[in-house]
Amino acid sequence: MKPVPSGYRQAGVDLEAAEETLDRIRGAVASTYTEGVVRGLGAFGGLFELPAGYRRPVLVASTDGVGTKVELAVQRGAYASVGSDIVNHCINDILVQGAKPLFFLDYIASSKLDPAVVAEIVGGVAKACREAGMALLGGETAEMPGVYEPGALDIAGTIIGIVEKDAVIDGSAIRAGDALIGLPSGGLQTNGFTLARAVLASRLDERLGDGTVADALLAPHRSFLATLAPLLREGVVKGMAHITGGGLPGNLPRSLPAGLGARLDRGSWPVPAIFDLIQRTGEVADAEMLAVFNLGIGMVLIVDAASLPRARELLAGQEHHLIGSVVPGEGVSLDQRPQPTA
Amino acid sequence: MKPVPSGYRQAGVDLEAAEETLDRIRGAVASTYTEGVVRGLGAFGGLFELPAGYRRPVLVASTDGVGTKVELAVQRGAYASVGSDIVNHCINDILVQGAKPLFFLDYIASSKLDPAVVAEIVGGVAKACREAGMALLGGETAEMPGVYEPGALDIAGTIIGIVEKDAVIDGSAIRAGDALIGLPSGGLQTNGFTLARAVLASRLDERLGDGTVADALLAPHRSFLATLAPLLREGVVKGMAHITGGGLPGNLPRSLPAGLGARLDRGSWPVPAIFDLIQRTGEVADAEMLAVFNLGIGMVLIVDAASLPRARELLAGQEHHLIGSVVPGEGVSLDQRPQPTA
Repeated sequence: MKPVPSGYRQAGVDLEAAEETLDRIRGAVASTYTEGVVRGLGAFGGLFELPAGYRRPVLVASTDGVGTKVELAVQRGAYASVGSDIVNHCINDILVQGAKPLFFLDYIASSKLDPAVVAEIVGGVAKACREAGMALLGGETAEMPGVYEPGALDIAGTIIGIVEKDAVIDGSAIRAGDALIGLPSGGLQTNGFTLARAVLASRLDERLGDGTVADALLAPHRSFLATLAPLLREGVVKGMAHITGGGLPGNLPRSLPAGLGARLDRGSWPVPAIFDLIQRTGEVADAEMLAVFNLGIGMVLIVDAASLPRARELLAGQEHHLIGSVVPGEGVSLDQRPQPTA
Repeated sequence: MKPVPSGYRQAGVDLEAAEETLDRIRGAVASTYTEGVVRGLGAFGGLFELPAGYRRPVLVASTDGVGTKVELAVQRGAYASVGSDIVNHCINDILVQGAKPLFFLDYIASSKLDPAVVAEIVGGVAKACREAGMALLGGETAEMPGVYEPGALDIAGTIIGIVEKDAVIDGSAIRAGDALIGLPSGGLQTNGFTLARAVLASRLDERLGDGTVADALLAPHRSFLATLAPLLREGVVKGMAHITGGGLPGNLPRSLPAGLGARLDRGSWPVPAIFDLIQRTGEVADAEMLAVFNLGIGMVLIVDAASLPRARELLAGQEHHLIGSVVPGEGVSLDQRPQPTA
């Protein structure tokens, strides 16, 4: 963080309030500082000393936003939650290549920045960073009244992780017959909100399970770092796919070598109730549901037959499903089976 | 870049047009690839192998936007130019700590993405990356109709650079009496646009120098990398300040140790005509001009008396000005002198 993010000053907001909030942000930011952060230096950029011991360190980087989930979050005041979402989304994006998170930078922009809202968002960002052992190294806030709709805001983030070059998971070892293990998502994660909000706009306050429809939609984007770290350490995973925009058919093929596709047993995992509600309310076709939503699978692991028992042992006590296998061909095909109860 | 940035698909834009543009983007992105980029891997994140030979490598990272300059750029169709602006802004932000750029990631969001516009922006981003020998390693586009005003867009970017730990420029060697060398900005760079646009809204098409007022406002944010690389190699610079939002009084103190301030000779550098036009048209007070705009100084170098001749030798043929010196105290004070003709 810059001592005073330039966006505050440019926009002429109440400087006292901004300073007050910045004090709160500073605390949240400092709470994420890991060993690598070089303190006391760096007025213009954040400094991070690379961990020692890597022979050929490869940095893995990804920038992402939370899409229109942010609109619902603003509407319901779920600022901290969506702050965590962007971090966890980015963690999963580099995790699939075997990278360990090092640090994160955020970007928060609005027509008018409310210091308390910014502090809540950054609090959520910092919380997710702490959980991942990752430093929140920097960030920027911007107030742009003519660019953003009144009251609207956007959040983007950039993650930098590290992996030993010969430990990069590139999927090249994947073969036909390998198993696909699905790990449950936290709900929609951060994708499909344009459709979901259009369909469920008038049903947000209805009960669904333990909370409201809005609660189900805003369920946190789950980070798979803690779950997968032991599997990565033992090298039992040949490939992974983070199921984001495009759903299973849009993301699974990105992890597969040319000439290989995936066959999914459509009934092999429970689909959370929120997806059924969207489909029934909006009369959405099966194919569109599959192409827009993760349908309850947040991450897919590709594991060969020899490693499967050990992989499942390491996942013991955590929900996971054998959802299909790698097959010759391309794309994703579906075997329809009766669906278990969610 | 992801094979298909998820923003395109989520938002239901014309997929054929998007694919066409992505082909163009891919070419621009690939044109930036430096030795460090690990090709052929990485469907979800970009991979970059660290250069060898560093003993204690420190990464320097910064995220920034271009502020409301983007509104004027959209209005005048200066997409490529503002794409370069965000890159050069970030380069300067890490350059002040002695870091060499490694790679960049961009974020482009709008109410509705025009593939041709995105291609132009990314073209400008890629051009500035190539000029800096930096890879455009990734990026994200997002279409968010309820968040962005119709027709509006925002651009943010994240830079990652590298510097040997004992070569980090932290300003600790700065002493009272050191000289301040000012390097000319390209104009407003990317700061002060909320005020400038408000004041000059009706005068954008008037002539100013070789072009229009709008041209002067949109003058590219200058990168100081090429100019300063030789000075950094020889270690003749003790500190630097990138003059962004907050102007000279807001940024120069960020580079100075506690107990030291700066005295500026107000008339020692030419102030470009665009700033005079803003001040006269808007009847803006001197103090506000100084706190909002760079007034023609884009970068300040802090050099001691012993190194000054060599520093100026290395800057030979490039415009630079002795604009003042480091003094005991704090903040920035001004000596008013008659101003030379711009």
